[in-house]
Amino acid sequence: MALLEREDAGGIATLTLNAPERLNALSDEMLAALSETLAGLEDDRDTRAVVLKGAGKAFCAGHDLRQMQAGRQAEDGGAAYFKDLFDRCTQVMLAIRALPQPVIAQVHGIATAAGCQLVATCDLAVAASDTRFGVNGVKIGLFCSTPMVALSRNVPRKQAFEMLTTGEFIDAARAQELGLVNRVVARDELDDAAQHLAASIADKLAAAVSIGKRAFYDQIEMSLADAYAFTGDVMVENLRLRDTEEGMAAFLEKRPPDWSR
Amino acid sequence: MALLEREDAGGIATLTLNAPERLNALSDEMLAALSETLAGLEDDRDTRAVVLKGAGKAFCAGHDLRQMQAGRQAEDGGAAYFKDLFDRCTQVMLAIRALPQPVIAQVHGIATAAGCQLVATCDLAVAASDTRFGVNGVKIGLFCSTPMVALSRNVPRKQAFEMLTTGEFIDAARAQELGLVNRVVARDELDDAAQHLAASIADKLAAAVSIGKRAFYDQIEMSLADAYAFTGDVMVENLRLRDTEEGMAAFLEKRPPDWSR
Amino acid sequence: MALLEREDAGGIATLTLNAPERLNALSDEMLAALSETLAGLEDDRDTRAVVLKGAGKAFCAGHDLRQMQAGRQAEDGGAAYFKDLFDRCTQVMLAIRALPQPVIAQVHGIATAAGCQLVATCDLAVAASDTRFGVNGVKIGLFCSTPMVALSRNVPRKQAFEMLTTGEFIDAARAQELGLVNRVVARDELDDAAQHLAASIADKLAAAVSIGKRAFYDQIEMSLADAYAFTGDVMVENLRLRDTEEGMAAFLEKRPPDWSR
Repeated sequence: MALLEREDAGGIATLTLNAPERLNALSDEMLAALSETLAGLEDDRDTRAVVLKGAGKAFCAGHDLRQMQAGRQAEDGGAAYFKDLFDRCTQVMLAIRALPQPVIAQVHGIATAAGCQLVATCDLAVAASDTRFGVNGVKIGLFCSTPMVALSRNVPRKQAFEMLTTGEFIDAARAQELGLVNRVVARDELDDAAQHLAASIADKLAAAVSIGKRAFYDQIEMSLADAYAFTGDVMVENLRLRDTEEGMAAFLEKRPPDWSR
Repeated sequence: MALLEREDAGGIATLTLNAPERLNALSDEMLAALSETLAGLEDDRDTRAVVLKGAGKAFCAGHDLRQMQAGRQAEDGGAAYFKDLFDRCTQVMLAIRALPQPVIAQVHGIATAAGCQLVATCDLAVAASDTRFGVNGVKIGLFCSTPMVALSRNVPRKQAFEMLTTGEFIDAARAQELGLVNRVVARDELDDAAQHLAASIADKLAAAVSIGKRAFYDQIEMSLADAYAFTGDVMVENLRLRDTEEGMAAFLEKRPPDWSR
Repeated sequence: MALLEREDAGGIATLTLNAPERLNALSDEMLAALSETLAGLEDDRDTRAVVLKGAGKAFCAGHDLRQMQAGRQAEDGGAAYFKDLFDRCTQVMLAIRALPQPVIAQVHGIATAAGCQLVATCDLAVAASDTRFGVNGVKIGLFCSTPMVALSRNVPRKQAFEMLTTGEFIDAARAQELGLVNRVVARDELDDAAQHLAASIADKLAAAVSIGKRAFYDQIEMSLADAYAFTGDVMVENLRLRDTEEGMAAFLEKRPPDWSR
């Protein structure tokens, strides 16, 4: 079995982190597999939504600590390796954001450190009710500074700060309250819930969704006036799509749209 | 009856979107009426709070799709019309923000697309418990990119993203949880609740409220250090008002203030 | 007794605002005491967490209005005094943020105006269930513009705006829902709860916590790409600490870390 499995059905690509014996750690190999698979999705017009899940007991437990400690054997004590590692990890996180398709984290078991960062980075997240989330690196003396970038853009400040400095876990219900996940379901309904959410997006006009996803993250970093100037142009671009003209006509004529895709 | 009605009482201007047969759509005519009325409020010293509500079954169902489709008949396929439409719509949203008086959205029935944007844009919102909120343009192939600007500054990211990409509605209780509205009441208490909130603001020193409203949106886009430098000056400006000196004196002397307004 | 008491135990400095007859107002003298004590903590390697509480019936009721009114007697009507006052107040707020140790607000009774700002400014907050929070300056004609800087970075926009323009109080349960406090406990468990939270942080590697605290506030004001570039370097810096290497080794060997501190 591959380190990162991919299954395709109904316009949905389901990616499974598949190193269960290591709690799907983001090892060098796993990061490479993610990077390659995400690159392949970028121009994949048949895929309109992506689900990211984990095999075994956990979604993802973060970086591979054993591999990191081994990296210290280099002459520079690991400095170059660590820099490169976080560069590669960041590229994966930014690739999820840059993907034209929405990405849904399907989370169970544990999502810790960079695993929690993955959840925060995905556009949407569905969690099993027994999931525990944490940015617990501080417990071993390694503050979760890169996971914090994604976490602090999902969760209010004081609550993010508490998780980061105490290293304590939160459960799925609390993660939903704080905005880290969209939906919480029983463990045996998790696959269905994630696929159902993905299908409701795959059902939409992909060109409109991808225009919107890109604009969402671009405008959120702008001033209000700039964001409006920018998204006004995005609306015009979207309106010029032939399928959007058809979607609007169909709505006014109370019939289903006849989209080209 | 006018397309946009205005009633004044007790320092409160109540504006009613009045095109119930079109669910108070933001047609060219409605945007013009809003623009004109908001401009008139800018220097209206007698008005200390504004309530914005809708006549009929809905608060506002967004843009006028029929009018938009008609705009496609132009030689350029509607490009110039669409650009101008979103410019005018944005000017209305920015005018609400720039108004010296706080604006309270009084919401019932449905608030969708640009109607949901109006709710997010108002400084405060009171909703009837049966209201449904959505940014559902994606269902007809037109992602709600301009509404997203206002929505994503009110609601946490993943929850805003879900609404935008699934097009699903949320109810009033959920809207309150997410931060989109301040208060939820029964339908038959809605007028009173909105007026009550407006009255509690109209009761304050208008000069202090307008200084504060402007500073609120200005400082929120600044770095922490810049925001403090800026608001420090705002405090000094506020403290120099004769009515503020009187308000502070009255408080220390445990008597009601004798304000000039 | 000093205006600001300090007690040290177990790596935790507990600071008590001690002007109960004035509800621990942030008078010129109190601001000076806070400034001096915070400066002393900056290089205090033995202190790994700070608790800030208030003596008497309230946590803190904000600025000293009587002193402010007296300041108006100057030839310039108080302009220079007010400007200096808010500069000094801002310096205290920024010093809390700049401190290498996390600061926990331990709140009871009332936290109003600049007292509410203090709560919002601290990294974490624990509140007694009977606490009332407000930015109620608007009631006397003085909009809480500087408190708003901290509040609007903790609490969603519409909810912050409501507090600022109505001057109404919220209770501790609501403050927790809105993100202003981390934990709410019964009044007689408050000391224990704040000390317990402080101890769970003092227990961590101080160098990692201080690296993380600084990075938290720095990265939150950056674009996503800049935040990742920045925190990638922070991770490498953290990983190069000898104690972090030991923490990681201890974790892999399932033993407690032997940290030098």
